Formats: sequence, C-alpha cells, structure tokens
Amino acid sequence: MNPFVYRDNLLHAEKVSCAELAEAYGTPCYVYSKAAIQDRYHAFADALQGWPTKICYSVKANSSLAVLNLLAQLGAGFDIVSAGELERVVRAGGDAGKIVFSGVAKRADEIRRALLAGIYCFNIESRAELERMESIAREMDIPANVSLRVNPDVDPNTHPYISTGLKENKFGVSIEQARELYRQVADSRYLHATGVDCHIGSQLLDLAPFQFCFEKIFELVDWLDEQGVRLQHVDVGGGLGIPYAHADQVPDPVQYARVIAPFMQGRQLELVVEPGRAIVGNAGLLLCRVEYLKNSAGRNFALVDAAMNDFLRPSLYSAWHQISAVHREDGDEVLYDVAGPVCESADLLGCQRSLCIREGSLLAIHDAGAYGFVMASNYNSRMRPAEVLVDGEQAWLVRKRESIEQLFADEVIPD
Amino acid sequence: MNPFVYRDNLLHAEKVSCAELAEAYGTPCYVYSKAAIQDRYHAFADALQGWPTKICYSVKANSSLAVLNLLAQLGAGFDIVSAGELERVVRAGGDAGKIVFSGVAKRADEIRRALLAGIYCFNIESRAELERMESIAREMDIPANVSLRVNPDVDPNTHPYISTGLKENKFGVSIEQARELYRQVADSRYLHATGVDCHIGSQLLDLAPFQFCFEKIFELVDWLDEQGVRLQHVDVGGGLGIPYAHADQVPDPVQYARVIAPFMQGRQLELVVEPGRAIVGNAGLLLCRVEYLKNSAGRNFALVDAAMNDFLRPSLYSAWHQISAVHREDGDEVLYDVAGPVCESADLLGCQRSLCIREGSLLAIHDAGAYGFVMASNYNSRMRPAEVLVDGEQAWLVRKRESIEQLFADEVIPD
Repeated sequence: MNPFVYRDNLLHAEKVSCAELAEAYGTPCYVYSKAAIQDRYHAFADALQGWPTKICYSVKANSSLAVLNLLAQLGAGFDIVSAGELERVVRAGGDAGKIVFSGVAKRADEIRRALLAGIYCFNIESRAELERMESIAREMDIPANVSLRVNPDVDPNTHPYISTGLKENKFGVSIEQARELYRQVADSRYLHATGVDCHIGSQLLDLAPFQFCFEKIFELVDWLDEQGVRLQHVDVGGGLGIPYAHADQVPDPVQYARVIAPFMQGRQLELVVEPGRAIVGNAGLLLCRVEYLKNSAGRNFALVDAAMNDFLRPSLYSAWHQISAVHREDGDEVLYDVAGPVCESADLLGCQRSLCIREGSLLAIHDAGAYGFVMASNYNSRMRPAEVLVDGEQAWLVRKRESIEQLFADEVIPD
Repeated sequence: MNPFVYRDNLLHAEKVSCAELAEAYGTPCYVYSKAAIQDRYHAFADALQGWPTKICYSVKANSSLAVLNLLAQLGAGFDIVSAGELERVVRAGGDAGKIVFSGVAKRADEIRRALLAGIYCFNIESRAELERMESIAREMDIPANVSLRVNPDVDPNTHPYISTGLKENKFGVSIEQARELYRQVADSRYLHATGVDCHIGSQLLDLAPFQFCFEKIFELVDWLDEQGVRLQHVDVGGGLGIPYAHADQVPDPVQYARVIAPFMQGRQLELVVEPGRAIVGNAGLLLCRVEYLKNSAGRNFALVDAAMNDFLRPSLYSAWHQISAVHREDGDEVLYDVAGPVCESADLLGCQRSLCIREGSLLAIHDAGAYGFVMASNYNSRMRPAEVLVDGEQAWLVRKRESIEQLFADEVIPD
C-alpha cells in the first residue's frame, strides 16, 4: 500500500492532508504512516508464517519510540546495535526477550546492560568480542545466548557504504573461524550457541546474493549439527531493498520467503529476520517548504527549508528520492535542483526535478521513513525537524521540533 | 604552533596528558586547545593589520559556546548561517554588530531575528532574498545593511561538496546580476549597499583561485564606485585550507594577505574575512579507545568507540585524518583499518594506518577541530561525545556527553 496519495490534487498521508500537517507542525517535518508500517510488518509475517519466526525490526532504520511501540504491539522483536537502541526498545514497550544485539564494537557497559535486560541473543562479530562476552557473563553469573555473525564473502551489489558481507569488511567472521569459535562456545559454561547470523548489506534489489549467502550459512548449520552443536535459530539478517524510483523492481517478502523456504524445510529451527528499511522506508516522507526560487547561469534552484542535516541520504549515499509538490497544480513544470540552506554544495536534495511550484510551495521528499531522522544532526546550528505519526484521520506529534535553546543547553563557557 | 605533542611518549593537549583527559571525561571526546585557537586568530589579525579588518569567524566550523566566547574575547566578528548560530554568538558574548549573515535560504523569522539583534550585514544570495529582505526591513522599519554574494565562476580545485563558486552552484549571483541588484538596493530606503561578498569554497590549498576571484570582485567594486555606489567593505569569504597530512603544503595567512594587498591598496574599504577551518581545524582532536582488534581475511581492524556519527568527515568527504596512538610504545607497528561501531561499511575512520596498539589503547584522530562535533548525530542511537577545552594545565568540560535519556526526551508514544 502507498499511504501517500493525492486527493483533489492535494497530497495526503492516509486521510490527513500534508498541507494541514505542515500548518500544524511546521516544516521540515517527517511524516510516518501507521497503516503502511503495519501493512509491511504483516507482509513479512504472512510471508514467513511457514516457520517459527522472529521478525527483529532493525531499530537503526527508524528508532522513533512511536514506531517501535507500534511494532512491539504487532509482536515484533528488535535488532539493536547499541545501548541507546536497547533503552529505546524497552521504553517503547518492546519485549527484551525478542532482542538480538548486533554490532562490531559492543562496549562492556553495553553488554552488561543487555545481559541484565535479558535479551534473546548477542550476535558476535569477532574472537575478541566472544572473549569479552564470556568474561562478562561469568563475572555477572548470567549465561548469554550467542550467535556468530558469519561473513559469507558475497558481493550484494549495492552501494559500497552499505555492503557488509565482503571479506574485507569489518563485519563478522569467516566460516572457517566460525567453526573454531563455536567449539570455544561449546567449552564455556556461560555461553550458549543459540544461533548463527549473517547480514550482507542493505537495499538489495536482487535475491541472488541472499541465495548464495543462505547456502553458505545453512552448510555451516549442517556441519555444526554433525559436530553435535544444535542451534535454535538461523538469523538471515536484513537487507531487502525497497523501491525509491517508480521503475525500481524490488522483490517482495513473498519472493524473499521463497528463497528461504528450501533451506528451512524439514528443520527444527526458528528463523530470525532483521528487516528495517523494508518495513519503514516507504512509510515516511519529509515535508519541506520552498523558501526561494532562483536562477543561476540558466540553472533553476528551489531552495527549501530542509537540508542535509535533516536528511543526509542524498549527500552521503548519492541517494535518489522522489520529490513532489504537495499541491498538484496545472501549469508548466520547470526543472529544478532542490537544495537546502546548508552552506555547502553537498546540500542538494534532488537534481533536475520537474516541478510546478512557487515560493511558499510545500514539497514532499518521499520514502524517507528509513535512515532519515535517525541520521539528522544540528549541522549549521539547525534544529532537528518534528516527527509526526499519522493514523487514519488522526496525527500525533511524536517528536517536537528542537528549540534553539536545546542546541547549547549542555554547553558551558569557562570562567 | 602544534598544541598536541608527545612528552615521555604520551600525547599531550597543551600541558594536559590525553590519557588523563580520557580518564576524566571518557571517550569519544573532542579536545580543543585554547592556545592554538588564539595563535591562529592572531596569525590572521597580524597578517591583515594593514587595513581595517573584521575577522568574522565562520561559526559553522565549530560552534561550541566556549570556542565562540574565546574568539569574541579576541575581538572576532562572526559569519553565521542560521538563527541557531546567531543565538549561539549572542549567548557566547559575541558582538552582534560584527556579525555577517550568509546562506542561500534565510527564513523570514531568521531575518527578523537578525534585524532585531542589529547585525552588521546580510550577505544576500538571490533576487528573491533581496526582495524578502526589503519587505521585512520595511515592515519592521529597521534598515538593513546588505552585501551581494557574487559567484565569480571559479573552480577552487577542492572537493566538489565544498566548492561553492562555480556558476552551476546554488550560491550567490552572477556579476551581471549583482550590478542590476545593486541598482535595486540603491532605490530602496530600507536597504544600504554596505559591501560585496564572495566565497568560492573550503579547504583551498592554492592561492590562484583566490587571486582570480578577487580580480572579479574588485572590478565590480570599481564599477559600482563609478556608478556612485560607495561600499564600506569587501568580504572575501573564507576557504583557506589547513594541513591534514604532514606533506600538505598550505598557504599561511601572511601569503594569503599578500594576495589581498594589491587589491586593497589605496582604497577606503574595510576588509571582511570569514575563516573557520583555518582557525580551529588544527586546534582539535577526537580521542577514542580501541574496543577490539580483529583480523578478517588478512586485514587488520582496530574497532574503536568513535564512529561516523561522532565524526562524519571520513565518510562524507573521504577525508584523511592522521590517527596516532596516545601512548607511543616501542614495538612492531601493524597496518590497521580504524573503524567504528556503526553498522555500515562507511563507518571507517582511517584506512591502513600503521600503529602499535592493543585493546584498550587510546587513539587520537587529529585535526578534528573543524567540521567535527558540529556534524555529529545520534545515528545508531549513540550519544554525542563530550567536548573539552584545554588551557595550559587546565581542562574544561565545555559540553558534557549526552545521556541515553536525552536521546528520546522529546518523544511521545501515542495512546
């Protein structure tokens, strides 16, 4: 479902007009659709219902308490990468018993906190981390479920910044090392080898790398089984892409499940998946307003009140996001570069977009539900935007816009 | 001067050991040197003393209240790009009468605030902005000093993200348009044409683009003079580079002033310069700690507790920063990729660095005084680092580390 549709030439989020949202909450403002998130969660749950499954939503994609609370109510587990994310999940009413903790450099205090919270499993990414894990579990006398993150050395054919399964990446351990480390786990009274884990990258538009990865992972599962190590679960990570452009052909959860099915057949294993972007990416947009139109050397610019500090993806990943006028008007469209107020050329939200707009027009930057607000900064001393969750005819301000005073509330001038 | 030197094989910030700073304030932690900032400010002031000059420090490089306060005490003016930066300068004791306000998309509320504060001058970047400026000044009955930012169409030969003086950039107006707009200013009772402004990019290592730019700007000044428009000042922007690698050959303020001198000779003009990075860049470092060492497919990783959310430059600009061990030890050095905990391959702070370190070792990421903390985010729900200002033997915690609770203090879960 697309929750963002035009009615009477006015873009709506579910049943609320985006113009009303901009009026009520100001711009820039992130808008999320509750129905779209529910819909995508159910698409995964339905596609994967053939096996016992934990859908561990990847919190880093969008960690709004409101979004986490919604997913917790739907029964989701959570994939976290920091103590901050753990605390968010707990605060949002999530079940710690359904949390997996990923990340290459977990600090000792983060491990302790997660052990106390009783999370389901730690995804371990190195020998050194396994050793720290063991020693903390022993010291606290709390046994830990662990899973080794295996790096299958597969090229996911995505942006190099979000490709994580090549052997030269910092992530995971090789299959060979994993075999050795599972032996070490078996020897420990404080570690339980609960599962195996992999994650080859983000925004994958092709299922072939998944297939290749699963072959390697399930081969390892079989080998471990032969060694007497009976795992409870296989965590196949996340990474399923979403459409950004209309022409993007993206596998849906059903097609994704079909790749998984032959591997799961006849096994007594729980499946863990870690979708993030695939659940929230298309469920959000960033509303902004045109401050000025200008022409420079034949090039037209729409200068808006959102910037790279609010939404970093175009600058950091050269990401393309659809940009449309909230009010659809009859009139000639003009090609604009849509740029923000931040003082660098990197602050360009979209290049050469055909739009019929004027000063004061509202624009929607689409598919900004994932890796949007979570990457926002105060660069140029700009306040981070508001976040709104829409549910049918109702809109909730789930995070108010920052105030100028908050920018430096923690700062001190020496005497 | 380099305030960060080894004494007894231990890196010091001025007279304080970086190990003590890490102990006292934790890691990751930004450390700034008061003496280095003063020294660089004086280098500019001395080099430019041949003319009346406003050194308007570019706040976006490092907007810490402590840094701004220090510069205000030295007599600096400020180049701001947002209402947030204006408020910071005021809070830090800066003189509003020495503020220039740059930026392509100033909002109406920002213009009003700056008019009320009585800033020195607005750098205007488009016809549309000039019109808004006029109408707000009229409505508030407060005349405004304006300067047109001219885009000289010069390639500064720097990273495309921080090159701002090409005609296809969003910045400024062409010389031709500037001539026309100055006429418009002359016709307004509420606008005073106080100056002309340019800024061609950041981190320039070569003086030739400056020379080319100044030729165009001063030609315009002469033309305006012929038309009876007598300007008070010429704002030549910022952009002077700093050394990041030892081998970087960088012009100093004296060489920079020599390029300016022939243009200023015999004129009744004040010079405005907007250095940012050139004042604070080399005056700061980011301290972090090695969490884990790991080898993956023959590649060594040092996984540290700082990440791309703390320091974005390596990910966003592929910036190279020197990384050194705080404790210099005798022993074999190994080549490491220095990476952070954030779950993407972009989170790589330095590639193939020769270091003699172990788990728990402290590392310093050098030359992080500019575009460091100001670009920090909470990505991966990580708390932003502490900031410390060192003055001789004394260290001041000028911004405490964020707490987990602050991450979601403004968030609400709908009923």
